[in-house]
Amino acid sequence: MSTSLDTSCTKLNVIFKDQSQSILIGPDLLSHPERLGQYVEGSQVLIVTNTTVAPLYLTAVESPLIDKQCDVLVLQDGESSKNQDSLFCIYETLISKRHHRDTTLIALGGGVIGDLTGFAAATYQRGVAFIQIPTTLLAQVDAAIGGKVAINHQQAKNVIGNFYQAKAVLMDVTTLKTLPLREFRAGLAEIIKYALLVGGDLLSNITTFLTNLTHPLEKNDDHYQQLSSIIVQCCNIKLEYVLEDEDETKGTRFYLNLGHTIGHALEAYTHYERWLHGEAVAIGLYCIAVISVKYAGADVSTLLLVHELLTRANLPTRIPKDINLKSLLRFIRQDKKIRNSQLNLVLMRSPGECYIETRLSDDDLYCALETAVEQDNV
Amino acid sequence: MSTSLDTSCTKLNVIFKDQSQSILIGPDLLSHPERLGQYVEGSQVLIVTNTTVAPLYLTAVESPLIDKQCDVLVLQDGESSKNQDSLFCIYETLISKRHHRDTTLIALGGGVIGDLTGFAAATYQRGVAFIQIPTTLLAQVDAAIGGKVAINHQQAKNVIGNFYQAKAVLMDVTTLKTLPLREFRAGLAEIIKYALLVGGDLLSNITTFLTNLTHPLEKNDDHYQQLSSIIVQCCNIKLEYVLEDEDETKGTRFYLNLGHTIGHALEAYTHYERWLHGEAVAIGLYCIAVISVKYAGADVSTLLLVHELLTRANLPTRIPKDINLKSLLRFIRQDKKIRNSQLNLVLMRSPGECYIETRLSDDDLYCALETAVEQDNV
Repeated sequence: MSTSLDTSCTKLNVIFKDQSQSILIGPDLLSHPERLGQYVEGSQVLIVTNTTVAPLYLTAVESPLIDKQCDVLVLQDGESSKNQDSLFCIYETLISKRHHRDTTLIALGGGVIGDLTGFAAATYQRGVAFIQIPTTLLAQVDAAIGGKVAINHQQAKNVIGNFYQAKAVLMDVTTLKTLPLREFRAGLAEIIKYALLVGGDLLSNITTFLTNLTHPLEKNDDHYQQLSSIIVQCCNIKLEYVLEDEDETKGTRFYLNLGHTIGHALEAYTHYERWLHGEAVAIGLYCIAVISVKYAGADVSTLLLVHELLTRANLPTRIPKDINLKSLLRFIRQDKKIRNSQLNLVLMRSPGECYIETRLSDDDLYCALETAVEQDNV
Repeated sequence: MSTSLDTSCTKLNVIFKDQSQSILIGPDLLSHPERLGQYVEGSQVLIVTNTTVAPLYLTAVESPLIDKQCDVLVLQDGESSKNQDSLFCIYETLISKRHHRDTTLIALGGGVIGDLTGFAAATYQRGVAFIQIPTTLLAQVDAAIGGKVAINHQQAKNVIGNFYQAKAVLMDVTTLKTLPLREFRAGLAEIIKYALLVGGDLLSNITTFLTNLTHPLEKNDDHYQQLSSIIVQCCNIKLEYVLEDEDETKGTRFYLNLGHTIGHALEAYTHYERWLHGEAVAIGLYCIAVISVKYAGADVSTLLLVHELLTRANLPTRIPKDINLKSLLRFIRQDKKIRNSQLNLVLMRSPGECYIETRLSDDDLYCALETAVEQDNV
């Protein structure tokens, strides 16, 4: 992996097993058509985007592609679109417009669009070129990096998918200016996850960033410069884990799942309708802090820190009272990371000191989760 | 790749990019439960099979798995099952029976069951263990080897899929005793393809085998011994091409498509209902011989040889008159192997001397295909 900085953006060059990847991070990338144009080789392109993002950025993405057959598919916005119907809608478009194996699929949107389009790219004609243009904070720091592509099943998140790397990921930080505040905050949950996972300087930087985030709507240039720097740091951390264990066979990559096992279960339980992914992860991180205090010897100060970071980001922390914990446990048990019927959970001894716990029983979990449920007088 | 022979079967050990594979070829493999048992590691198994094969071999396959959670899904027999509905039926079964990432999918049946189950295995939880037990001649010499897994779309065959290698392929040649004659002959089409592709000794062996095949229904032990030997030879040839170009990026693997571009188009045109895959390939091989005489300088004796081999195997050769060639050309143009809108076709200068032709126009093709249409007085 190498890093270079030109005048306006950071470029990470990553060598995966089957694909090299260029990641560009910086402001106003979409205002420079050649940034995207250089990565599209064939004569056909399909841009997949959604009803929210299309009016804002589709024209900019199409502009370097005027000499190509450039088709566009606009899906409904939201996690509930990440399903079988949308996937087959992409295939139908590709087949009816006669896209060949040298076509390029471009995902323009958040994690839902990226995961869905990436899975279509991985499987159409057994794999075609794929470019990600993530427009949400969550997709920029997490979903667009690492090659996990998938659709959801109503019983389980991301249960049908592949590992498939994009050839290029263009992160235009300026697109975050149009991101709704709720989505922006959901992205912060993944950033907090990295801070808790590695601790040290990143934890300090992120704590400072969140502390200064008193007026997130101001979004001045200085704020975006700090944010760019944090996105680059998060991408580098994620890439370190991914490069060690690209197809998740060694276990290293599993650490990135901090807070996600319970987060995914909460999402599936509520049919992906109640929370944004980052919001569910925020509750998941809080639960992990509670479990870590109970079973991993973590100090209560760790729980308080997690609570403080999430609260500063205006994210939820506790499990709402209407969630039936027994049902939630059944969703947790459906987790993809289970091997030999044993649930694995990433716990924290302290920020920066995580480990994989395999010995918790359903009763242990139930008992800890009860403590994480919201209470009337708190 | 290495080969070993124990008393009763040939074992090929293949090292692919992401997976090593054991291929066992011989009689009565399913009568020895330990042959299969050694390859199933986790505690969960899903056997996918069809209504024809289940009554014959399901009990034998289940017998070494009695200490596991062994679920079974029986699909309708036939190419028309290789679709989105069957694929999602496999996912539904896996999810409802709570299969984890260490589950094993076993495909028991022909190419349809193998391709479909393999694609489900490649994509369930981003990839679980996969074992093939091919029970048709076509699957044994072709479909079960090389890692191409897919489903069909009504407009195009195998258009949605992955490259995904099984960890083990168990070819019990004895299962061919129950194979309907029509299916047996369809398998011979792929064997004839290998003979034309490499020429030399294999062409002689296969010509002899087909010449002696005057009473295919006799199926005596000697016949099965010859057949075993031919299956081993065919697998070795296929593996040579596959190992050079596992994910079809270099072009070497494309030679295995001899006769298939037109065969696939005929299948899609007739909604996969009129011909078995091998029958469509037989017509495809005949068409390629006609095109090769017209544009590749092949001698008419090559066309006569192809006609003779296919006829000895009781396979169709000519395009039926009711097929509209213009419509057929549109299906050919949808072929997955098209790059930069240019159709690639494997042609033969002579048996054993094939090359990839990229310069044929639609008019050239139409003109040659007209010659391959069946005629009233021939």
